[in-house]
Amino acid sequence: MTWNEIINLALEEDLGTGDITTDYLDLEPIPEKAFMIAKAPGIVAGLEIAKEVFCIIDKNLKITMYKRDGDTVKRGDEILRVEGNPTSILKGERTALNFLQRLSGIATMTKAMVDKLEGTSARLLDTRKTTPLLRSMEKYAVRVGGGYNHRFGLYDMILLKDNHIKACGSITEAVKRVKEKNITYKIEVEVSNIKELEEAVRAGVDRILLDNMSIPKIKNCVKRFGSKVDLEVSGGITLENIREIAQTGVPFISSGALTHSYHSLDISLQFKE
Amino acid sequence: MTWNEIINLALEEDLGTGDITTDYLDLEPIPEKAFMIAKAPGIVAGLEIAKEVFCIIDKNLKITMYKRDGDTVKRGDEILRVEGNPTSILKGERTALNFLQRLSGIATMTKAMVDKLEGTSARLLDTRKTTPLLRSMEKYAVRVGGGYNHRFGLYDMILLKDNHIKACGSITEAVKRVKEKNITYKIEVEVSNIKELEEAVRAGVDRILLDNMSIPKIKNCVKRFGSKVDLEVSGGITLENIREIAQTGVPFISSGALTHSYHSLDISLQFKE
Amino acid sequence: MTWNEIINLALEEDLGTGDITTDYLDLEPIPEKAFMIAKAPGIVAGLEIAKEVFCIIDKNLKITMYKRDGDTVKRGDEILRVEGNPTSILKGERTALNFLQRLSGIATMTKAMVDKLEGTSARLLDTRKTTPLLRSMEKYAVRVGGGYNHRFGLYDMILLKDNHIKACGSITEAVKRVKEKNITYKIEVEVSNIKELEEAVRAGVDRILLDNMSIPKIKNCVKRFGSKVDLEVSGGITLENIREIAQTGVPFISSGALTHSYHSLDISLQFKE
Amino acid sequence: MTWNEIINLALEEDLGTGDITTDYLDLEPIPEKAFMIAKAPGIVAGLEIAKEVFCIIDKNLKITMYKRDGDTVKRGDEILRVEGNPTSILKGERTALNFLQRLSGIATMTKAMVDKLEGTSARLLDTRKTTPLLRSMEKYAVRVGGGYNHRFGLYDMILLKDNHIKACGSITEAVKRVKEKNITYKIEVEVSNIKELEEAVRAGVDRILLDNMSIPKIKNCVKRFGSKVDLEVSGGITLENIREIAQTGVPFISSGALTHSYHSLDISLQFKE
Amino acid sequence: MTWNEIINLALEEDLGTGDITTDYLDLEPIPEKAFMIAKAPGIVAGLEIAKEVFCIIDKNLKITMYKRDGDTVKRGDEILRVEGNPTSILKGERTALNFLQRLSGIATMTKAMVDKLEGTSARLLDTRKTTPLLRSMEKYAVRVGGGYNHRFGLYDMILLKDNHIKACGSITEAVKRVKEKNITYKIEVEVSNIKELEEAVRAGVDRILLDNMSIPKIKNCVKRFGSKVDLEVSGGITLENIREIAQTGVPFISSGALTHSYHSLDISLQFKE
Amino acid sequence: MTWNEIINLALEEDLGTGDITTDYLDLEPIPEKAFMIAKAPGIVAGLEIAKEVFCIIDKNLKITMYKRDGDTVKRGDEILRVEGNPTSILKGERTALNFLQRLSGIATMTKAMVDKLEGTSARLLDTRKTTPLLRSMEKYAVRVGGGYNHRFGLYDMILLKDNHIKACGSITEAVKRVKEKNITYKIEVEVSNIKELEEAVRAGVDRILLDNMSIPKIKNCVKRFGSKVDLEVSGGITLENIREIAQTGVPFISSGALTHSYHSLDISLQFKE
Repeated sequence: MTWNEIINLALEEDLGTGDITTDYLDLEPIPEKAFMIAKAPGIVAGLEIAKEVFCIIDKNLKITMYKRDGDTVKRGDEILRVEGNPTSILKGERTALNFLQRLSGIATMTKAMVDKLEGTSARLLDTRKTTPLLRSMEKYAVRVGGGYNHRFGLYDMILLKDNHIKACGSITEAVKRVKEKNITYKIEVEVSNIKELEEAVRAGVDRILLDNMSIPKIKNCVKRFGSKVDLEVSGGITLENIREIAQTGVPFISSGALTHSYHSLDISLQFKE
Repeated sequence: MTWNEIINLALEEDLGTGDITTDYLDLEPIPEKAFMIAKAPGIVAGLEIAKEVFCIIDKNLKITMYKRDGDTVKRGDEILRVEGNPTSILKGERTALNFLQRLSGIATMTKAMVDKLEGTSARLLDTRKTTPLLRSMEKYAVRVGGGYNHRFGLYDMILLKDNHIKACGSITEAVKRVKEKNITYKIEVEVSNIKELEEAVRAGVDRILLDNMSIPKIKNCVKRFGSKVDLEVSGGITLENIREIAQTGVPFISSGALTHSYHSLDISLQFKE
Repeated sequence: MTWNEIINLALEEDLGTGDITTDYLDLEPIPEKAFMIAKAPGIVAGLEIAKEVFCIIDKNLKITMYKRDGDTVKRGDEILRVEGNPTSILKGERTALNFLQRLSGIATMTKAMVDKLEGTSARLLDTRKTTPLLRSMEKYAVRVGGGYNHRFGLYDMILLKDNHIKACGSITEAVKRVKEKNITYKIEVEVSNIKELEEAVRAGVDRILLDNMSIPKIKNCVKRFGSKVDLEVSGGITLENIREIAQTGVPFISSGALTHSYHSLDISLQFKE
Repeated sequence: MTWNEIINLALEEDLGTGDITTDYLDLEPIPEKAFMIAKAPGIVAGLEIAKEVFCIIDKNLKITMYKRDGDTVKRGDEILRVEGNPTSILKGERTALNFLQRLSGIATMTKAMVDKLEGTSARLLDTRKTTPLLRSMEKYAVRVGGGYNHRFGLYDMILLKDNHIKACGSITEAVKRVKEKNITYKIEVEVSNIKELEEAVRAGVDRILLDNMSIPKIKNCVKRFGSKVDLEVSGGITLENIREIAQTGVPFISSGALTHSYHSLDISLQFKE
Repeated sequence: MTWNEIINLALEEDLGTGDITTDYLDLEPIPEKAFMIAKAPGIVAGLEIAKEVFCIIDKNLKITMYKRDGDTVKRGDEILRVEGNPTSILKGERTALNFLQRLSGIATMTKAMVDKLEGTSARLLDTRKTTPLLRSMEKYAVRVGGGYNHRFGLYDMILLKDNHIKACGSITEAVKRVKEKNITYKIEVEVSNIKELEEAVRAGVDRILLDNMSIPKIKNCVKRFGSKVDLEVSGGITLENIREIAQTGVPFISSGALTHSYHSLDISLQFKE
Repeated sequence: MTWNEIINLALEEDLGTGDITTDYLDLEPIPEKAFMIAKAPGIVAGLEIAKEVFCIIDKNLKITMYKRDGDTVKRGDEILRVEGNPTSILKGERTALNFLQRLSGIATMTKAMVDKLEGTSARLLDTRKTTPLLRSMEKYAVRVGGGYNHRFGLYDMILLKDNHIKACGSITEAVKRVKEKNITYKIEVEVSNIKELEEAVRAGVDRILLDNMSIPKIKNCVKRFGSKVDLEVSGGITLENIREIAQTGVPFISSGALTHSYHSLDISLQFKE
């Protein structure tokens, strides 16, 4: 689905057979101004989506952006202004906010983690633990917050996990099979100890995922193989431990919580003169 | 969209042009068993959705449920078993978990709040602050957790908020307008003080929303008008204050956080003999 | 489906792989004028839909409205003018008329009934006995004719009919069950005699449907319970009996024939200098 | 759209976000029997469609047909029985009836006209004056009633009407143009007098439509040209005049009223032991 | 599907989740000019489709046509120019060429055959042996090359082939059955010898297909029945034999190879100052 | 689009409003047998697609495969048998053949080229010069014929062509930009001489495309850089020159003609006792 299709479906979901409140009120179409205002500090993401929500409802609504995706806001900051038929504004309010608050929540959390990486060479990656149907938007919000995107789906990189390996007998065998046919995609292998790591390096892959290893072990892995292959750390990443992990020299750190357990950024729409 | 359409779109999102890892591995289709296991305590919700994910991928997969939606799980509990072609299981794993973890997260949070209401007559309601495209599933998870559903969209109940009222001049005028044409839907009005509440009661509506009032004020509202009209409290509901609010005697308490800021319940899929 | 989707599907239905007559004629695109003309007296409804038909085919067609929805026309009245490429006009003619004639037929019949209600407080309602896929348009035509809309579907009001009640054992039990979970929708109950009416009133519902009762019985119902609950009369409503029914003081009268057995209003398209 | 798509859309239209009445009642899924019963005499059409409505809702419903499309029913006749979960039956009732009543109405009216043609060689045709989106079903009902189908749309036969002819200068010129490119489709020309008829015969076409001619004129046309070309009479066909028209020997008579102004056949669904 | 839908699907097919090359390059949006240039001689067809590809990607791209559909090009000729954001041009290049090269290939082959018919009265027809989903475009390309279109599908003409006839027992019986119900479509019968041809002529049909007959036999068929019915030759038509076949006087010659085995015309896109 | 969607659309394209020939014939549904028979030698591909065509039309048709995708057939070989209602077989015949003949044509041509590579280490790749909407099927046919798939679209590998490089100033700069953001996809660069090749190797990429180079130049490139990076030859590949190219030691050879200019394999359907 394109973002436009998603937005249209979201509006259908909320409007159903129509906004009965404004339909029955039959308000005068005298232009009014409403402002999206941050009620908490954070990073905004999804402004174009919020704008598109209003434009789909009523192409005569005028949207003025006071912030751009990636900008920092503090409580009370005006983010955007929507001006026009109040009925149209009221119809789009909730849907626009539902997108904007979630994506800003993700960008805010990502930025907080990325800030911890300052001075290290580590990059923060997301995962496929995203909200069904909104992956593309959520991964965009991760980029807005300064993160990088891991796989977009099962289709763009080969990742051999424990279950794949078990089914083939060994890392060596799994990598061999994949290499026979694949000439297009990068190959990553998940390992959980140094022995598996050694095997994966020998098998020849593009990246290796160190799953849930302790920091000392990560350090050891980086020291021994960091120059030969790209390493990625995953599992239990928090604001508290991310810096220490990054300081091991590992180039990639991936975190599922960025998209599976974020808090919406509090933003509200207020009509003003 | 039906749930089935949502699930299909979610699979399309993840599979795109195909699961290249399993495609290239070309695993033997020898049946294996995989278990969804709780990694944290909570309430499960969305089991039929998880099942449907696997069934869409491969109708020969056999799903055995060890829990039902609404059941409590503790760390380590087996939730369901999926048995069959390992390639099919691997293709559906992430999408099934993405649904199940989110909905269980909502049910868990809802249940925690509902437990606080024990002994009071208050019912916990959700809001329209749901994830775009997943509202119907998220509202289902709220019910699983013991909550009730407020409006499903702009189409099923009339809710006159401050902006609607401002545009009409007064609560009295707004309600009058709506009543002229509407013979089908219930009418709710949002008020922020006792004077507005009095006006709304006089205008004759089905429910009144007390927006962000202090507990003493809520108490006063309930005392004076609780027998004449249904009252609903909204704004800043937390696990800490919900019981005290409920003890004012207010019959409805609504919370946006149930759906806009939940934590996914940690659940993983493990292959076992 | 939106009206726009319906119109597009209707055009697809008629055009299929193309209008072979005009395709093979290859007419000069010299602008011509065609007029929709009433061939019988009535109320017009659906002008914007007819306009949209032409605009979808050719956005350069100019439509001039001589009437508005709800206006009375007599035989020979010009309703609208469409000006532009004759090929485009010919392609849209039948589809535009198929919508306009049907909706005008409904509005005409509704208006005839509504006129009979003058001086009474009764409102004329439609039913769900509408043409599949065109319900929203047909209910619009009822409003154009001065009627009100009953339920749009099974989703916007609870209506307990004889079969629902039988399945639950009693009106009291059916209403009790619904009230346990429903906090959003109005509840209506269908009754066929005064005893059931009493029970429904006691159970506490928003409206009661008197099904196929004689006028004296309706009178009695209104007298005893009209001040306590909204009453609605349904079954066998005709131009001949509607006024007498309205004079019982019943506030709502619903008629299926408005949408299941209307006559299209005769309207034709004529090219003129 | 296929019939299956139409039926699914019709169910979506009626069910929207769900049948709230049965959802809240939560009836026991104990199988019940409901019967569709004719409340007026007529010809039934659309039984497979009614059946499909129920099957889409619940594939476990068992449908027993007592009649087949085209059968005559009298008041009180059982048409079909649906047996199974009462909730499923109640969800499908209205949609199934909305199709069945309309199509039976068309078949009934068609049959009444076709009966008048007995002993003549005339065939009764429908037109494109059908309900948008339901043309294929309505034309099926015409066949069930013993009629024949004229064009299904603008795509399957060339019909040169007065406006086409005017735009080309003459019948001769219009036919010539079409014949230059068309090698696939039959050509019909509409004429309003004997002179135009002569010209059309000379131009060489497959069928000629006599538009709104008096019976004596039709007689004359048939006498002079009936052996050279297929003739079709159209305009103002009624139960009263159709036999006399047929007796002129004209092979085709087409009527728009069959599909634009029919009465639904009264049929109801009743639960019974 | 409309051409616009086909083009959109083709772009989706190529772009998938995005053109990662240009996405990662993030080129300056400084307008550039690119030219489609013929690398081999032929007839161009599909220019509007190529244009539409670019317009869908970026409505600000300016397209200048140097050729029109049906024009002859020689190696090195500029066909069209696209000017604007280079990223947009690069995204559309392959899809635009994929359409244009194929359709031009068909037009080129058709034109070569049509040229051989000069001076005869034969028309070259295509068949239903077209690429799935692209039939309408391919048949358009045949017209561009000077050919005519046979059936667009199974829906627009009746063609009784050997298997149909076998199933009915005889040509006479097959034609009789079809004529009982069909009043709309032309009827063609396939025959493989003069005896069948005679029977088909007697049965009365609109066209007769002579399947895989030798040229002398075709000559005989034309001589004996050419004045009574339209004849069509099919099977093994090549550039070498088509003229001789046409000289038999047969009015229609149909060739599957036009659409099932064409060579794409070599065209490339080049950026230039 | 999935293959199933493509097949359904192809059937819609051919059937439109219905197969009027078989509809009017109303054949007895007495099971018959029809055989797909090769009329020329080649490699079959697409048997499951042909089967699916018949199954969508009528799930009671029984398909027996005599060959599997990739098998060699000679003139007269039976490929598959379809048994059941002759009306269903006739409806699906053309669409099934249209897929099967094209895909077999591609597999046949691919196999011919692959056979030339015997004893070398070269792999034959396809390109994106595929038929719009059928890319996935055509690339499947290439694999059936023994080829490998290059990019499926713009989304699965980064390929920097001359225009991309020109826009960035140099290969070095283009590769640098891509590497800054991309951590997921392989990078290929197109070069046209040894100097560019050297630059590309220094920039560090996964594969390098030698565009339209002479065989001696290719030999030189392989000799100097073949051990450091994967090389691919493209441009003007024919049955005549492919072996010599392969003997240079280049590991990848890609050919557009495989999918842009194939000949359908001649296959027909014959009813037999």
